Amino acid sequence: MYFYERFCLWLGHLKLSRVIFMVSVLLFIVPLFTHYSLSKYAESGTKTDNPMRYSLEALGDISTKNAADLKMRIEEMLRIRASISTELRELEAKRGRLQVEAAAASTKAESAKAMHLRAAAELQLLRVSADQARLEQLEAIRRDSPQLAPPLQILPSRPPPVLPAIAPTSEVHCRMFSCFDHSRCSLTSGFSVYLYDPDVFVPLAGAEVDGFLKTTLRQTLGYNTHITRNPNEACVYLVIVGESFPFEKTSTSTIDTYKLLLNETAIKNLPFWGGDGRNHILINMARRELSVGSGDAFRGTSIGRAMVAQSTFTHDQFRPGFDIITPPALGPPGGDVWADCAPIAPARRKYLLSFQGSQTPPIGFDKDVDSSLIEILQKMVKSAPATDLFLLQFECDPTVEKRAVQAIGDWALCGTDRSRRAVLRDSTFALILAPADRTYTSTALLQARLYEALRSGAIPVLLGGDRIRLPYEEVLDWRRAVLSLPRARVVELHFLLRALGDADLLALRRQGRVLWERYLSSVQASVDSLLATLRTRLLIPARPAPPTVGVPAFNESYFPPRLEPPAVEAEPEETLGPLEAPYPSPAYRRNYSVALLHGYESWNDWLDPFALYPQLPWDPPVTSEARFMGSDAGFRPLGAGAGGTGKEFSKALGGDRPREQFTIVILTYEREAMLAAALSRLRGLPYLNKVIVVWNGPSSPSAMATWPESGAPVAVVRPSRNSLNNRFLPYNLIETEAVLCVDDDANLRHDEIVFAFRVWREHRDRIVGFPGRYHAWDLNFNNGFLYNANYSCELSMVLTGAAFIHRYYMWAYWRTLPAAIRDHVDEYLNCEDIAMNFLVSHITRKPPVKVTSRWTFRCPGCPVKLSQDETHLLERNKCIQFFSQVMGYTPLLSTQYRADSVLFKTRISHDKQKCFKFI
Amino acid sequence: MYFYERFCLWLGHLKLSRVIFMVSVLLFIVPLFTHYSLSKYAESGTKTDNPMRYSLEALGDISTKNAADLKMRIEEMLRIRASISTELRELEAKRGRLQVEAAAASTKAESAKAMHLRAAAELQLLRVSADQARLEQLEAIRRDSPQLAPPLQILPSRPPPVLPAIAPTSEVHCRMFSCFDHSRCSLTSGFSVYLYDPDVFVPLAGAEVDGFLKTTLRQTLGYNTHITRNPNEACVYLVIVGESFPFEKTSTSTIDTYKLLLNETAIKNLPFWGGDGRNHILINMARRELSVGSGDAFRGTSIGRAMVAQSTFTHDQFRPGFDIITPPALGPPGGDVWADCAPIAPARRKYLLSFQGSQTPPIGFDKDVDSSLIEILQKMVKSAPATDLFLLQFECDPTVEKRAVQAIGDWALCGTDRSRRAVLRDSTFALILAPADRTYTSTALLQARLYEALRSGAIPVLLGGDRIRLPYEEVLDWRRAVLSLPRARVVELHFLLRALGDADLLALRRQGRVLWERYLSSVQASVDSLLATLRTRLLIPARPAPPTVGVPAFNESYFPPRLEPPAVEAEPEETLGPLEAPYPSPAYRRNYSVALLHGYESWNDWLDPFALYPQLPWDPPVTSEARFMGSDAGFRPLGAGAGGTGKEFSKALGGDRPREQFTIVILTYEREAMLAAALSRLRGLPYLNKVIVVWNGPSSPSAMATWPESGAPVAVVRPSRNSLNNRFLPYNLIETEAVLCVDDDANLRHDEIVFAFRVWREHRDRIVGFPGRYHAWDLNFNNGFLYNANYSCELSMVLTGAAFIHRYYMWAYWRTLPAAIRDHVDEYLNCEDIAMNFLVSHITRKPPVKVTSRWTFRCPGCPVKLSQDETHLLERNKCIQFFSQVMGYTPLLSTQYRADSVLFKTRISHDKQKCFKFI
Repeated sequence: MYFYERFCLWLGHLKLSRVIFMVSVLLFIVPLFTHYSLSKYAESGTKTDNPMRYSLEALGDISTKNAADLKMRIEEMLRIRASISTELRELEAKRGRLQVEAAAASTKAESAKAMHLRAAAELQLLRVSADQARLEQLEAIRRDSPQLAPPLQILPSRPPPVLPAIAPTSEVHCRMFSCFDHSRCSLTSGFSVYLYDPDVFVPLAGAEVDGFLKTTLRQTLGYNTHITRNPNEACVYLVIVGESFPFEKTSTSTIDTYKLLLNETAIKNLPFWGGDGRNHILINMARRELSVGSGDAFRGTSIGRAMVAQSTFTHDQFRPGFDIITPPALGPPGGDVWADCAPIAPARRKYLLSFQGSQTPPIGFDKDVDSSLIEILQKMVKSAPATDLFLLQFECDPTVEKRAVQAIGDWALCGTDRSRRAVLRDSTFALILAPADRTYTSTALLQARLYEALRSGAIPVLLGGDRIRLPYEEVLDWRRAVLSLPRARVVELHFLLRALGDADLLALRRQGRVLWERYLSSVQASVDSLLATLRTRLLIPARPAPPTVGVPAFNESYFPPRLEPPAVEAEPEETLGPLEAPYPSPAYRRNYSVALLHGYESWNDWLDPFALYPQLPWDPPVTSEARFMGSDAGFRPLGAGAGGTGKEFSKALGGDRPREQFTIVILTYEREAMLAAALSRLRGLPYLNKVIVVWNGPSSPSAMATWPESGAPVAVVRPSRNSLNNRFLPYNLIETEAVLCVDDDANLRHDEIVFAFRVWREHRDRIVGFPGRYHAWDLNFNNGFLYNANYSCELSMVLTGAAFIHRYYMWAYWRTLPAAIRDHVDEYLNCEDIAMNFLVSHITRKPPVKVTSRWTFRCPGCPVKLSQDETHLLERNKCIQFFSQVMGYTPLLSTQYRADSVLFKTRISHDKQKCFKFI
Repeated sequence: MYFYERFCLWLGHLKLSRVIFMVSVLLFIVPLFTHYSLSKYAESGTKTDNPMRYSLEALGDISTKNAADLKMRIEEMLRIRASISTELRELEAKRGRLQVEAAAASTKAESAKAMHLRAAAELQLLRVSADQARLEQLEAIRRDSPQLAPPLQILPSRPPPVLPAIAPTSEVHCRMFSCFDHSRCSLTSGFSVYLYDPDVFVPLAGAEVDGFLKTTLRQTLGYNTHITRNPNEACVYLVIVGESFPFEKTSTSTIDTYKLLLNETAIKNLPFWGGDGRNHILINMARRELSVGSGDAFRGTSIGRAMVAQSTFTHDQFRPGFDIITPPALGPPGGDVWADCAPIAPARRKYLLSFQGSQTPPIGFDKDVDSSLIEILQKMVKSAPATDLFLLQFECDPTVEKRAVQAIGDWALCGTDRSRRAVLRDSTFALILAPADRTYTSTALLQARLYEALRSGAIPVLLGGDRIRLPYEEVLDWRRAVLSLPRARVVELHFLLRALGDADLLALRRQGRVLWERYLSSVQASVDSLLATLRTRLLIPARPAPPTVGVPAFNESYFPPRLEPPAVEAEPEETLGPLEAPYPSPAYRRNYSVALLHGYESWNDWLDPFALYPQLPWDPPVTSEARFMGSDAGFRPLGAGAGGTGKEFSKALGGDRPREQFTIVILTYEREAMLAAALSRLRGLPYLNKVIVVWNGPSSPSAMATWPESGAPVAVVRPSRNSLNNRFLPYNLIETEAVLCVDDDANLRHDEIVFAFRVWREHRDRIVGFPGRYHAWDLNFNNGFLYNANYSCELSMVLTGAAFIHRYYMWAYWRTLPAAIRDHVDEYLNCEDIAMNFLVSHITRKPPVKVTSRWTFRCPGCPVKLSQDETHLLERNKCIQFFSQVMGYTPLLSTQYRADSVLFKTRISHDKQKCFKFI
């Protein structure tokens, strides 16, 4: 059976087509032979030139020969058979040897071929990178514009000199150009602010600054990065004036004169007053007893060239572009304020419009100054259809103690904070009436109403708003949050309120809420906004946002394996990009232009005018032709500008942005083997600037000898505590705008990473990555969204286990997101990726971008992580619901497509190459 | 050989595995049999129970039997063979018959199955559309908010009543709330404006209004949609005051007093003055002889409650939020102004900073009021590196006639318009110095400098800018175009200018240019801006942009084929969407909120505050949960909110927008057969609202009987002239936001159209379509871009031969694009698609979106269009270069990815369905 086995084996190795061919040939040949031999048999031919024929003939002659002869012949045949079989066996053995030799030779040839390919690819890479180097050199020569850094401070070194005071009559004409000393505030000074100790310098006569306010202001100002303890280098000096009450409250009677007794002498003796108080800001914050108004401490007092920041101003007194209107200090000192807010949805609440207040007629005014207005409003309520509910009370509940109120026809608040809040949370719009005394441009009471309305999500409707100024209005666009109408429009009020659609109501309410949270809510927010407003006015860039200093996990500063041209082993057949030396993204190039070109957005959309960042996701691109006309620094156009397909594409980044690289941040929790595998998979990845391993876990990583080489510098940092939030720490080690966040078990191919990087370059403000997820409405309980990881045709999140984000969002994660969200992540050890999706969608109002067909990113053999079990998913439902509660809404937006490379699955001519082989 | 053929055939149909199995069985069995028969032969057994054995035995016995017996047996064997062969033949025939029958049966079964599938799909569609109908009904019941339309006008019917004049001392306190009569300007009034005929009412004493200005203003105001001839219904009354010169020019001497002699009596006798001039605007436009300043006609004159619009104001005189600063009327009356502008690139020009001017010291001021400033500037020039070239001339060329200048220390212009333009076109920045007299907040000379700098693309640097007001600054964000610095920053000027990068320079210059073009360039632009500023202040929506009234090609109004549920024939196996009745997109729902929520963008980014549109591409979406909490009108979430894959996807549009449909606009040029084919291909296309055929060509289309039914209403319109621009006429027949532009020979599959529609819904402000093209730099001549239609990995245009655009862009094409571009399209019968790409990228600064792998859209058999030949392509190169010249830059931006459906080429489990079968 040996032969049959060999035969079967050989047969097994044969291709099926060959088998069929052979069988067909046999089927064709056998009948021919049969026919031939049968006819030969019939002819009884005598030729004996082959042994078979011979034996057949021998058999044929059997009848005529004798037995002995037969026996002899049979023996002869047996001999022949034996010799043939021997011969066959030898042949077989020879064939075997030859086969082995052939196999060996072919293996050698294959390996030689592969080596050649790899060598060619490497040569190609080297050539491209040589080109890159030449280009860089050229650029370096051409570029003579200064490389900016976080601005160095240029500071004054002496206190302001004493100058003669100005006449009180010209005080009212103070503007920045006439009363402010710019020489103390150079563009590079960083805007230093000195605070007079409110315990030492008491600017009020016979009154104390409110204790809470004093403490809080001192404390919150201490957190502000601009505060300096050196008065000599200060640009601006802060004096805390109010809020204070120099008189006994006479709670039931109308107070007909109201005046803070500013101690002019004390003010003028302030050590850095400099004779005329220039560059001083007198802060008079309203807090307690708003029912009497915070008061206007400065009327009739001479304050020289000092600026005033308070809530109450008359038209005459307010110096536009100089004085600043602040909100009353009604909130907490600082910290999260979301718990005070109402959810943004539903768009329409119980009451269309609400108002509660009572008015004391101002001195010298008719009692009925606002009566016609009230009449029209009451008529409107009566004629409204039943579907539109109004709650308009122009007298407070008389059983509640009636409060004294400033005698300017202002509307006092009714009830308690709690009762007002209950009404406002049920109101779509909140009516705010300007004080009857038209000389006022802002009052503390009115600002308090605005504050409370915004806090509870009732869209403020400011009747008489054309004579009212709102807080920080030189930087904030209040039109997007407050309906400000002249009193004459009261007859059209109902029409206008009804004309606004749900999407508009939600947009107005959302904007009101974010402006409130960011700029008014707490004393900290208010004080920061005050200083930032003045800083913006002076064109001085903010202080740079401090990065997190990475603590190295090893004794050495950090671990930089020798950078050598990596032997491209993973995918030698596809060039994905040129080899480059690490190239950090240019940083702090727009210190002075962000406030010019994006001043509006940074205050009203991105909500972060408080810090300077090395780059922003919204930096504008250079226009198309400028790149070929002198503005080509860093640009790598496809085909030098001619465009092209795969060949040119793989050599240059192209697009509308200069060349750049990305940083990979790997979060790992004591899984060294997995991390090692992850690092080694990165060898030869183009555009990789650096790998940062965030080592989460109680024990240190083991000695560096065991770390594999990844082809780029690797930094291992050990955060101070174990937290998933560490993934988004804005480490100083990150030197590129693009950050690829990956889990340690993520298994992405190089081409996938490079493609995602290219797509991210077009959507720098969005999360661009692979694993798509979505939030599905909970149809059972109908009260929120559930997390869903199934395949779907619509997605609203891309997990940061394998996604590109802009470095800016790592700061925003810590600065813009309420702390409650990060605490929740820490508590459940989960959902940091959902939090990042919430943050980015909140800021941009855009969905993430999913790239390629890859839906999951785990390496096939890797052990299942904690993310797989059931409780993990339940927790993620809770996260979505909690985060939505904190932010007031679910900012996620949906997308129904994904990004593929332009020529994916496209038939193109043979002389062209696809952008990527597989994606 | 017949049997062998049949056998081979049968073998061919066998599975390979079976062949191998059989061959193996044979190989196993044959030796066994051979062995068995050989051993039998050796045993010489006698059993004869089968014919073969029998014949073998017969052969074996040959030596002992006689020949006759042998012959008989052979004959018997032959007989047996014949009978067996007959039997076999019959069997074969029977088998054949059976096979034919089986095939027929299987065909029938297949067709029955297909019919069943189709029926099921149709049933499915019907069910879904029944669901849709129910939902719609529900929504209709729930929705009680008024359906808004383009606003109806509510107008006053009487002239303003006469009221007592106000005291001149309180004039300076005029604000909108104190001096404006809102009752004449209801929100729905449409802001009617009455113009006093400047020939009849002469407000100046002893002077004529400049003739050119008078004619031009009257003419341009006539084009403004707000002008009314009925003074009784007007909201605002315009009085053209200047520019006029009541005195003889004394060309070489300084004019030390300058005053227009406003004829107070004439003014107060204006027929609608109403005693106090409320709602009147006195327009005093500077034009001629800017060297003397346009003058301030109103100083010391009583003008009651009238507003003033002019270029020159002192701080005291200017009433913020009431008066309006206008640019000088330096430009043409109207029309294209691009030819006056300089290209935006390169970012850096020959001079870093230039200034040319001479100053006459103001009366009562020291001669050297600005000398320290000039000294510092001159020092800066000296200490600058050689790479930074300055051109600072503080004295005009003395050989040129020295002009008289207003005695306020203003800087007179040097040289001629041409000479100044030459310098400015070579300057990166243009220095503008505020007048030495600090009481001025704006002067005509300064505004003229600003005008000229912006026109030539020199970024204005306004030193002393903190006391200067710029034109229309309550609506325009000048920070994005002008560097406004306090004089104290002069020492930091060079540093600041150097700190701005190329991208910032280009952005500042671009913004300056678009603001200039849109709001300042011509008298028309300036007057329109003036009225729009006031209208914005009053919260009154603009007049609706007029749509093009489609002239029907047939006698009947237009051709609506009976709408019946189309029999889904094209792709019965894929449900792409529910069947719906035509559903127009809600229109004019945001008349009052656009100015609130998007006031900033509409003035500064979209550059179109002049008209009201039914919808905008930027309307905000409703937040995620609001949809499930009352704001669900029109929403069709996937799986009712639970999300899902193909099954749920095909039933609902999902996404963040309410349901909607699209309109197809087909441009055709007398190719009826092709058009008929195109229309019939649309049968059963979901979400299709209407088809509009734009019939370009001299002859009318033939009778309607020949038109195929497309399943949706078809309107055939015949524009007044043959033009490719007709493709983008904003026809009133279009009732949806989404417009799919197609050529008549475009051959798109239904699934492709539906997918592109879904992607467009996420990118409503971009062109979303199929054929990608790009602009490649001309490497040979290095002076512009070339059009490229090749396959590429980066694209910057999507042709409108098969693309979705927002309806808004059809208006923008006619209103925002310079007329020169449309004329070029008409001249060359080409490039309307490139023009649309330029326009959209210009407004959005975003690239288009390419969907699916489809690169071309022509039907395979269609005849080659004119677009294929060589000259056509050369023309397209010229178009890109010409359009770039007109717009000052190439606004196109690049993209390196395309959109595919989320689960394209993804393996998913069997219980789930892909989003689309093929894309």
